[in-house]
Amino acid sequence: MRNLNEDTITQAVIERFSRTPDPRLKEILTSLIQHLHAFARETKLTEAEWFKGIDFLTRTGHMCDDKRQEFILLSDTLGLSMLVVAQNNKKPAGCTESTVFGPFYVEGAPHYDQGEDVANGAQGEPCIVRGTVRGLGGEPVPHATIEVWQADADGNYDVQYAHLAHAQARGVLKSGLDGKFHFKSIRAEAYPIPTDGPVGEMLRASKNHPWRPAHLHFMIKADGYETLITHVFRDGDQYLDSDAVFGVRQSLVKDWVKQPDGTYLLEYDFVLNPEK
Amino acid sequence: MRNLNEDTITQAVIERFSRTPDPRLKEILTSLIQHLHAFARETKLTEAEWFKGIDFLTRTGHMCDDKRQEFILLSDTLGLSMLVVAQNNKKPAGCTESTVFGPFYVEGAPHYDQGEDVANGAQGEPCIVRGTVRGLGGEPVPHATIEVWQADADGNYDVQYAHLAHAQARGVLKSGLDGKFHFKSIRAEAYPIPTDGPVGEMLRASKNHPWRPAHLHFMIKADGYETLITHVFRDGDQYLDSDAVFGVRQSLVKDWVKQPDGTYLLEYDFVLNPEK
Repeated sequence: MRNLNEDTITQAVIERFSRTPDPRLKEILTSLIQHLHAFARETKLTEAEWFKGIDFLTRTGHMCDDKRQEFILLSDTLGLSMLVVAQNNKKPAGCTESTVFGPFYVEGAPHYDQGEDVANGAQGEPCIVRGTVRGLGGEPVPHATIEVWQADADGNYDVQYAHLAHAQARGVLKSGLDGKFHFKSIRAEAYPIPTDGPVGEMLRASKNHPWRPAHLHFMIKADGYETLITHVFRDGDQYLDSDAVFGVRQSLVKDWVKQPDGTYLLEYDFVLNPEK
Repeated sequence: MRNLNEDTITQAVIERFSRTPDPRLKEILTSLIQHLHAFARETKLTEAEWFKGIDFLTRTGHMCDDKRQEFILLSDTLGLSMLVVAQNNKKPAGCTESTVFGPFYVEGAPHYDQGEDVANGAQGEPCIVRGTVRGLGGEPVPHATIEVWQADADGNYDVQYAHLAHAQARGVLKSGLDGKFHFKSIRAEAYPIPTDGPVGEMLRASKNHPWRPAHLHFMIKADGYETLITHVFRDGDQYLDSDAVFGVRQSLVKDWVKQPDGTYLLEYDFVLNPEK
């Protein structure tokens, strides 16, 4: 294995990794090596460009901590996240569609009872969110764990405030025996994804805006059903057709309707896919 | 741009990045998106595997600092570095071949005069290194800047010792008017690349050893010539045919010859490619 050149190296590297005992890891590494090399060969990547790539990845890693995930943001903005979501969530018609997880989920969100205010001090237009969790057969799903998270009126998630010590506009609640749930929060607003890191550089260099249409994240777990990770998007948002992370599904778009008392109401029912 | 599925998303993402004003950046992004998506589609990457990848890249970034470059190590061990070197350094026959830069180069190495000892306290078998820098036409290249770096007898570069404050076994010197150079150092020894990070995990999972055959790094710069980045490998090393970073070229293999006084002598002449 000496004197490898641009034509022989890819096969030599694949050969080297062919002893990988785990067949799935071997399959993934083989495909990764082929596509990584094909990318470099097809673009005739220069050494200076290679180094810019190394530097970009290094700075992306350095932006990541327990409250910021720049690699997820990179995957989201390159459409990789939505591709992975799409190919892993082919559900029967009638199920609620999935969309991207996003970089702002945080473990350990506070638990709330039905009707409580998950905003917990976050600024925004007050709203009520209510709906029912059902299975594909129409049956109500009781005791489903419903986790929600969203940005505030300034377009920030709680974790983006350096000095905020408690969770805001995120929480966990359970559906009732009838599958129903309701809670208070604030209306979702459009916001730009963080642009102070490498992903922001990439968006500026490609003349792409960083905005996501207003949305409320949901993760719903229940025994006997596949976990649903999705958003509800706000109807009429100007970014519905140019979401920075390619996540919009028409079936997930719904209006936050203004009520006589000035607050807003979002009603959305979820349909879970039974576990195989 | 709603309701993108696994078949339509790649074209939509390429379309989104098609406004990139810099044509070269647009070309690179387009190829990157195509191959990244093709990799995920071909492997039917699951969401759990995607997240393992995000985690791997994040930890790789966190290993990088001013003395450790885990992304270069990843590129090296996946053969990407050698591919990029090979396709960018197609030189006329007679020129010294290039090989990988590696992750252990450090800016600001100390300057030495001819004959001085660049080991500077590093442990190893004493040796003398000498040779001539010439152009492709055979002309000696005076005042060439010759930068060398290498591991010590324990297989460590100076920057791998946390408490070592000064440079060892690395330095910069100039060729004489006749293109000749000579300096003292220690004999190169085989060593394993660092395995305490994500790249080490990858090598263990693929049953690959982390060893590099013994080598001495050279970077040679001179006005009117292309910069040469290469190593001289030590003949007889057991890892010459299984270099962890795929960098060995037969033309770069030479013996450190034992002298009557017990020290070693490496003689190697370099031939630079004239700048276009």
